[in-house]
Amino acid sequence: MSEKSKILIIGATGYIGKFIAEASAKSGHPTFALIRESTVSDPVKGKLIESFKNSGVTLLYGDLHDHESLVKAIKQVDVVISTVGPMQLADQVKIVAAIKEAGNVKRFLPSEFGNDVDRVHAVDPAKSVFATKAQIRRAIEAEGIPYTYVINNYFAGYFFTQLMQPGLTAPPRDKVIIYGDGNHKGIFNNEDDIVTYIIRAVDDPRTLNKTLYVKPPRNVYSFNALVSLWEKKIGKTLEKVFVPEEQILKDILESPFPIKKVLSINHSVFVKGDQTNFKIEPSFGVEASELYPDVKYTTVDEYLDQFV
Amino acid sequence: MSEKSKILIIGATGYIGKFIAEASAKSGHPTFALIRESTVSDPVKGKLIESFKNSGVTLLYGDLHDHESLVKAIKQVDVVISTVGPMQLADQVKIVAAIKEAGNVKRFLPSEFGNDVDRVHAVDPAKSVFATKAQIRRAIEAEGIPYTYVINNYFAGYFFTQLMQPGLTAPPRDKVIIYGDGNHKGIFNNEDDIVTYIIRAVDDPRTLNKTLYVKPPRNVYSFNALVSLWEKKIGKTLEKVFVPEEQILKDILESPFPIKKVLSINHSVFVKGDQTNFKIEPSFGVEASELYPDVKYTTVDEYLDQFV
Repeated sequence: MSEKSKILIIGATGYIGKFIAEASAKSGHPTFALIRESTVSDPVKGKLIESFKNSGVTLLYGDLHDHESLVKAIKQVDVVISTVGPMQLADQVKIVAAIKEAGNVKRFLPSEFGNDVDRVHAVDPAKSVFATKAQIRRAIEAEGIPYTYVINNYFAGYFFTQLMQPGLTAPPRDKVIIYGDGNHKGIFNNEDDIVTYIIRAVDDPRTLNKTLYVKPPRNVYSFNALVSLWEKKIGKTLEKVFVPEEQILKDILESPFPIKKVLSINHSVFVKGDQTNFKIEPSFGVEASELYPDVKYTTVDEYLDQFV
Repeated sequence: MSEKSKILIIGATGYIGKFIAEASAKSGHPTFALIRESTVSDPVKGKLIESFKNSGVTLLYGDLHDHESLVKAIKQVDVVISTVGPMQLADQVKIVAAIKEAGNVKRFLPSEFGNDVDRVHAVDPAKSVFATKAQIRRAIEAEGIPYTYVINNYFAGYFFTQLMQPGLTAPPRDKVIIYGDGNHKGIFNNEDDIVTYIIRAVDDPRTLNKTLYVKPPRNVYSFNALVSLWEKKIGKTLEKVFVPEEQILKDILESPFPIKKVLSINHSVFVKGDQTNFKIEPSFGVEASELYPDVKYTTVDEYLDQFV
């Protein structure tokens, strides 16, 4: 068995980054996290960094904007996983430049974690965010850097507690707001499963220069089917309010930023069908649950049980 | 009476930008909006742009990232108001460079519209957003560009319908979540009033190279006082859940992006008291309701009546 690749996570203190750092270390990959020195004393992130150390993650002090520190960190590893947040997406050109200079990286996974940005029909602000991610893809390809793009669609923990009905901490029990006609299918994946697939994929030749779609068959649901499933679980019929596209577009325009963004992603998924309106062709993509059938993923059906 | 200054809005299709464009045109300022040509056919923004034209706003085609178009637009006006969203905050260095080159601008208002970023005690991600805004301030000052920084604290329309209890569309009637001990005071201003003050300020020598704080005395409330006021209005006592700082910091860390950001802003305001924990000194700031006492602003008390 070959030695496990060394993995560097840039953005390890972020939402998905911390899952990846923990899972990478746990799976036996020598794992490194690029951390700003000032972050260690951050009241929010300091404790998390402490837990990384306990899990065997090696901290490398540096900064996305400090080219030398970035190159130095990258030279120590085989795989770079970027999990930077939306404010730093464009700055990933700096990671691309550093990987190019370092010259040793066998795989780069840029920060994606949503819809396939080469196959979306979104409106702003999602449109601009998707375009920024696409630009980073083009920069990676132009430099000939080996890559895997991970499309995990919705984070279940995020969608079911927050997005299904913004502000709730569990699926609704009286009234449900459905975007569009409720027939387009979205995909809802557990964070831990997504991360398991990612760690499997980093050394896998089948995912090299491909998009890895996390689209396990039992997690693909239309909004209507999702509501039916939930209604069965709680033994109650919900009042359904369908919001037509025109109203969604108006709401996007009139809402301030964070809400605007969430609504425009929902529009892309549930009105345009952007998570499921294309076929994954072998020329560009592979599907995670097919590649790794031994991974026992959490199904939407199981996931919803915790809220009953 | 002197001629009214010509105003260019960069980001006019955004949340606060559209209020400013309409108010500027209505107040008799020759008003211009920098619009990407592709935006005209955007399903979301096309109608808004149509309404701008009907209000007398002149469209100038161009792009933040097209230096020539930016300089050309700026040369036609006296005042530049940037209302770009969080994803473009850092890109405002391009506006600064274009204003420098154009050489004719009498006042620049960068995109602020929140807390005073030179006087905050925030954690990430708010911390990074605030730092980006502060960097833009330093770039403006370094180039000697005349400025006004507008600190409007919370948008009432945003806070009362969304932030007080994320996800609700009106203040709660059963249970209320209070950040911290509820004693720090925040400031809640109606969007229309904020915009009225801004339009007054752009030609006012008293706001030149100063921060304009929108802090009208009747809109400064602690969370506890806000809840009491609301309870009186609905004639009912709410269940109160106080969330201590440690829990808020944990929630920030564990939440995905948009929620993370909202929580970290609430932390800055309600735990650190960042909207009200300093005195507005004449050396750096002026207060809007003092400068323009004839403006009849909507008070929080009046604002809440719509939800009763």
